[in-house]
Formats: sequence, C-alpha cells, structure tokens
Amino acid sequence: MIERERRFLVESVPDPLPAPSTIEQAYLTTRPVSVRVRRIDDRHVLTIKGGSGRNRTEIELDIDPGQFEELWDLATELRIAKRRHRVPLGGGLIAEVDLFDGELQGRRLVEVEFDDDATADRFEPPAWFGREVTEDGRYTNAALARNGWPDD
Amino acid sequence: MIERERRFLVESVPDPLPAPSTIEQAYLTTRPVSVRVRRIDDRHVLTIKGGSGRNRTEIELDIDPGQFEELWDLATELRIAKRRHRVPLGGGLIAEVDLFDGELQGRRLVEVEFDDDATADRFEPPAWFGREVTEDGRYTNAALARNGWPDD
Repeated sequence: MIERERRFLVESVPDPLPAPSTIEQAYLTTRPVSVRVRRIDDRHVLTIKGGSGRNRTEIELDIDPGQFEELWDLATELRIAKRRHRVPLGGGLIAEVDLFDGELQGRRLVEVEFDDDATADRFEPPAWFGREVTEDGRYTNAALARNGWPDD
Repeated sequence: MIERERRFLVESVPDPLPAPSTIEQAYLTTRPVSVRVRRIDDRHVLTIKGGSGRNRTEIELDIDPGQFEELWDLATELRIAKRRHRVPLGGGLIAEVDLFDGELQGRRLVEVEFDDDATADRFEPPAWFGREVTEDGRYTNAALARNGWPDD
C-alpha cells in the first residue's frame, strides 16, 4: 500500500490523553529501504518502507515472537522506544501522538495518516500541532534512531 | 533460524535432473542485512538474512502476490532468475542445483543445507561438485545480482 501521512512537532500535548500503546522498534537497515521490527503491546510486526516524504510504499507483516527476537538481534544500533496515544481529530482522522522514551526521552511527534492526497492536502492541523516536518528527513523515526533529535 | 549451508561451483550437471522450480528474486538491500523477495513457482516469499558465510540468520515470510509486486518494485536493480533442481544426495541431504537465466545465463551453483554444524563439517561433496565457495562472498546470490559472475 501507499502510506500517506503528514508529520508534525507537538506544540502542546492534549490533556487528557487516551491510554497509549507501548512501542519498541529497531531498524535492520534504513537505506535504500527501511526495514523495521516493532513490538506494539503484544503484537510483533515487520515493516518495509520505500520512498520518502508524504507518500511511501509500506508493507507490514505480522511475525511471531521468535522471529521478532531474531530480527531484533540483527538490528545492532537503531532502536526507538515510545508511547503512542491515538487522539481522534474528527472526520475519521486520528492523530498518533508519539512520546519518546529512552535516549529520545521527552521528545514528541504527531502523525496523521490519510486515505488520499486530497484529504492530506486540505488537512488543517489543530492548534496543539507544531511545525510540520513531513518533508524533513531528519524527523523520520529511522533518522531519529540513527542520529538523535535534530539540533534546531 | 540459523541457516547452515555450503555452496559450491558445479563441475558437471547430473543427468537426468529432477524437474526444476522456477525462481525469480530481487534484492531490496544487501547490507547490512539482505532483504530478498522471491517468486518460486506459485509461492511468494520475503527473506531476510543477516551474517555471512556458512551460518546465517534467516527469516522467511510468506507474502501475497500484491505484496510481492510492491516489494519487487522497490528493488530497482538487483534481480536473479534461475531454475532450481533438487537432487537427493542420500542421508536426507538435498543438493539444490541452480541453473541461472537472464544475465547470468549458463552459470550454475549448488547448495546443500545442513541441520547442524557436525553434519556440515563431515559432508563429502560428490564428484560432480566443483570448488567450494561458501566463504567467498562474491558467490552469494546478492553479490551475483549486484556485480555479476566473478572473473576467476
């Protein structure tokens, strides 16, 4: 599938937040495609993404815990831990608010996925969203895992 | 799982050969892990391998034809086509004889997989096997797809 998403910094976190999912993820490689293993609560997923920016090819495959462990061990350096809060925005849209833990403790991003380009284009971010970073490759989770949080 | 295999050139092809499977495969990346999509007859498989030489971590996941097409399109350059003949060697061992098509037309390799290191160690290649290339990284399918057949 083609993943259409826009990504933003978070100006202020909505209060209260829905209960989060706990996500741990690691990258086996980030170029020319990214290969990610993720544990989200009790589920284990392998995701392959190609392309950059708003529209990326994304393939998601469920894996079992044993496969997760083996793949996790192949990812020697790039790891991310975060809590993901899914905040309904109306119109069927969901803001996925990621609050990072570990080395990125205190950092936060919000993503919104869209079914089509038109909806993505006309999306008006709510006031609690910060600067848009969709086209800024430094804010992909893969880049954050590799390089840490950007300086500016 | 850990994949234990030894790989050889082919001195002479057994005659007759069992009917082959037709394999097409492409690589999304080859370093630091290799990510391969393969169509083998009617089956579609995603394989991730880490490590090098005889013992490599290998995870194989069945994918559907649509996922295969999307992943295939992410692999822009590295493609291999071959026919694979599975020749029983006795003792439960199978020689997988790969006869390459396409740009590697006429080239051939044979691989044997083992359940454990001891069996791999004491394996005596039959006379029709050629030089062993297990530890020669130029003869992995990923390297062949990238660089073509080695000169020597």
